[in-house]
Amino acid sequence: MHYQLYYWTGLQGRGEFVRLALEDAGASYTDVARIDGDEVMTDFLEGRHAGAQPFAPPFLRAGEWVIAQVAAILHAIGPQLQLVPGSEAQRLQALQLQLTIADLVVEVHDTHHPIGVGLYYEDQTAEAARRAQDLRDNRLPKFLGYFEQVLQQAGGTHALGTHSYVDLSLFQLVSGLEYMFPKRMTTLSKQLPGLKALQQRVAERPRIAAYLASERRVAFNTNGIFRHYPELDAA
Amino acid sequence: MHYQLYYWTGLQGRGEFVRLALEDAGASYTDVARIDGDEVMTDFLEGRHAGAQPFAPPFLRAGEWVIAQVAAILHAIGPQLQLVPGSEAQRLQALQLQLTIADLVVEVHDTHHPIGVGLYYEDQTAEAARRAQDLRDNRLPKFLGYFEQVLQQAGGTHALGTHSYVDLSLFQLVSGLEYMFPKRMTTLSKQLPGLKALQQRVAERPRIAAYLASERRVAFNTNGIFRHYPELDAA
Repeated sequence: MHYQLYYWTGLQGRGEFVRLALEDAGASYTDVARIDGDEVMTDFLEGRHAGAQPFAPPFLRAGEWVIAQVAAILHAIGPQLQLVPGSEAQRLQALQLQLTIADLVVEVHDTHHPIGVGLYYEDQTAEAARRAQDLRDNRLPKFLGYFEQVLQQAGGTHALGTHSYVDLSLFQLVSGLEYMFPKRMTTLSKQLPGLKALQQRVAERPRIAAYLASERRVAFNTNGIFRHYPELDAA
Repeated sequence: MHYQLYYWTGLQGRGEFVRLALEDAGASYTDVARIDGDEVMTDFLEGRHAGAQPFAPPFLRAGEWVIAQVAAILHAIGPQLQLVPGSEAQRLQALQLQLTIADLVVEVHDTHHPIGVGLYYEDQTAEAARRAQDLRDNRLPKFLGYFEQVLQQAGGTHALGTHSYVDLSLFQLVSGLEYMFPKRMTTLSKQLPGLKALQQRVAERPRIAAYLASERRVAFNTNGIFRHYPELDAA
C-alpha cells in the first residue's frame, strides 16, 4: 500500500500525528502538498474529487479510501501499519485516547485563537492571555495527569501496554507543549515521569530519530498548533 | 446486549448523541447517573473501576467494554444497533462525519466559554460576544454548508445514503443550534434544505418521536452545550 497524505505545507499541525505513524512504520507515502502545493487539496475540499469529502486537512488516500480526521485516519491505518493491538477492545481504547489527545490539541490551538480561527493572534492577545492561564493552571495538569495515569495503569511504558500510534501522538503532544510552554512544562514534567520517559523512547526509535533529523520534519513554529509566544508561558 | 450509559444529569450535553442512537434502535439501556446520581461516575473517572479509564463522560458500558468519547462509542455500537452501513469505507465515513460534528460541538461550547470551561459564562461575556459573532458569521455557514453538501452528494436524504447514527447526530446538531441561535438559524436554514428535511424526518421516526415526547428527553437549557443567550444571537 502506498499512502498519499494531504496537509498544509510549512507547519507540522495536525498532519504531524499521521506523519509520525507513517514514518515510524516505514510506510511508503507521498506528502502530496509539499510536492504539488496546497492548491492540490482544493478539489477534495470542495467535493469535486471521488471519495469522501474532507472538511479540512489532513486527509489520507489509501487505495480507494479518502479518510479525513486524524483519529479516523489512525484508526483506519493502525492495523495495516501494525501500530495498534489487534483486539477490538484495544482498537477502541486507542481511538478513545487519540480523541482525548485531539481534545487537548483543540484547547491548545484555541489558547492562541480564543476568539476566532480566522483572526490573527495579534487581534486576540488579551483573550489569549486569559485563556493561557486557564490552560496552564487547570487544563494541562488535568489532561497530562490523565495520560500519565493511563500510562502507569498499562504498565508504565506504553499507553496500550505495547507500542502503538497513541505513543507516537503522546510524544508529539509532550514535545509540542514543551516548545509552546517551556516554563510551565518544566514544572509539570516532575509529575509526569512516565510521559517523559515515553517521549524519550519514541525519539530514539530508529525511524523516528532519522525522521526528526531529516528535512521532512518541519520545525515547530508560530504557524502551527503549538506556538511559542513567551507572554503566554509561566512556571 | 444491555447498555449502561453514564452522563451528567440535568442536561442533554454530549450524552444526547449516544442517547438518540440507543433510543432510535430501541436498545435496552440504563441511564445510570439519572438513577444513582452523578457520583456513580467517580470511580470510573479516577481509574478505580475495571476497564478503560474515561477522561470525561459520556461513557458507555457494553458487555466488558468501557468506551468513552461520543464518536468512539457510536463507532463501536453502530453495527450492533444497525445504525451504520456494513462496509469498512462507510464505517470510516460515518466516523469522520461524527468527528466533524464533534468539532463544531466544541466550537459551539467554546462560544459561551471562550476563556475557560471552569469559569462561569458571566465571567467571559465580552469574549463570548466576540466569539459568537465569528461563529455566526463564519463557522456556522462553513460547517453547516459542508454537511448540506455531503448530504446532497449522498442523494439528499441521508448523510451516508442510508439511515445511520450520523443522521441522528445531525438532527441533534441542527435542533440545538436552532435553540441557541433562533435568529441566525432562521436566516441560514434557507440554504440548508437537505438538513432541514432530515431534521424533520428524524423527529418523525416513531421511536424518536416517542422519546422526544417523554420525560427522558431533558429540555435544552443553559447548562448544556447549546445555550440560548439572546445577546449572542443575531440574524
